[in-house]
Amino acid sequence: MLTLYYAPVTISLATHILLEEVGATYATKRIDFQINQQRSPEYLQVNPKGRMPALVTDRGILTETPAMLVYVAQSFRRPDLALMDDPFAFAEVQAFNSYLCSTVHVAHAHRMRGTRWVDAEDAHSIAAMKRKVPESVAACYELIERGMLKGPWVMGARYTICDPYLFTIAEWLEGDGIEPARFPRVIDHRRRVGERAATRKAIAQERV
Amino acid sequence: MLTLYYAPVTISLATHILLEEVGATYATKRIDFQINQQRSPEYLQVNPKGRMPALVTDRGILTETPAMLVYVAQSFRRPDLALMDDPFAFAEVQAFNSYLCSTVHVAHAHRMRGTRWVDAEDAHSIAAMKRKVPESVAACYELIERGMLKGPWVMGARYTICDPYLFTIAEWLEGDGIEPARFPRVIDHRRRVGERAATRKAIAQERV
Repeated sequence: MLTLYYAPVTISLATHILLEEVGATYATKRIDFQINQQRSPEYLQVNPKGRMPALVTDRGILTETPAMLVYVAQSFRRPDLALMDDPFAFAEVQAFNSYLCSTVHVAHAHRMRGTRWVDAEDAHSIAAMKRKVPESVAACYELIERGMLKGPWVMGARYTICDPYLFTIAEWLEGDGIEPARFPRVIDHRRRVGERAATRKAIAQERV
Repeated sequence: MLTLYYAPVTISLATHILLEEVGATYATKRIDFQINQQRSPEYLQVNPKGRMPALVTDRGILTETPAMLVYVAQSFRRPDLALMDDPFAFAEVQAFNSYLCSTVHVAHAHRMRGTRWVDAEDAHSIAAMKRKVPESVAACYELIERGMLKGPWVMGARYTICDPYLFTIAEWLEGDGIEPARFPRVIDHRRRVGERAATRKAIAQERV
């Protein structure tokens, strides 16, 4: 039995949606960012990085969204959700997810998590990072809008693990100060992922 | 036939080493960061992100190191190099590589690439980011040293795609202002990967 540690409005939603897509039986544990629970001794035992999400399995604890998404697809015998049987197609799936985690999510994180990269007392630099976010995040969406998002789903005809991941990150777009009308294909994709039963169920669970 | 676009002393070395490990036949094309060639119109045709590395295959162009490493292992029939036949073990491999790309490499990048996240004219913030690098990168190595690096290889008994990736990033440790003696297991691992024939050959090719 799997247990997903999640926090609302964080990247854990991507894995949460996928667990619903594959029909997994799983428990959830909510971590409260308002009281900095992701840095509590209890949670650091689960994930020493103090980040979301973590997935407790019978074999051990997994972290990192790109890894967890492939794990869920593979272990629930849905390698088709990651196009795993075709090395090139799987690499495209992985490249997309890698871009989300290493570039898009990181650009976004400079709005709220600037103290990872400058001293907490340096208000000037923290504000400077925050100001740059609309530009740096939009530059990522330019690439996604113009090419990486093949349509109708990220990888083309088939829904894959890239879709709930992009959906989750694209939910932050307006909060990052970006006018959604600039990226109509991204917004249309977000709407369609949002309408899926699995997405609605995962979101409803996190709102409880 | 594969063609690897690389630049010396960048993350492209990880894939370069793996191509040697699997005995691939491949060509290389060098990109010169000194003249900002990664932003040239020619290279942006190859990789619109303007980043290293890129791997040209018969099916199309791949980017993002974690994706390329799995691709090389899988397409050269060496899934053992990624422990791909075991979903949990494969997820651990992917989680490690995801951490390298989204956290360790990103922490490091704040030393030289601060203008990704603040305006280029903001010398104060760029210097502030640079100053934080020894601390933020060392915090990553604390986790790697104390647990993530199982030993003797990253994933334990078997050499995997995590090893050339950690090796490549750990080569930047001193440049990031970190005293290597703090992380003896990381340094021992770096030495052992560095002694492998594949590693020596890839490095020698990049020095030409």
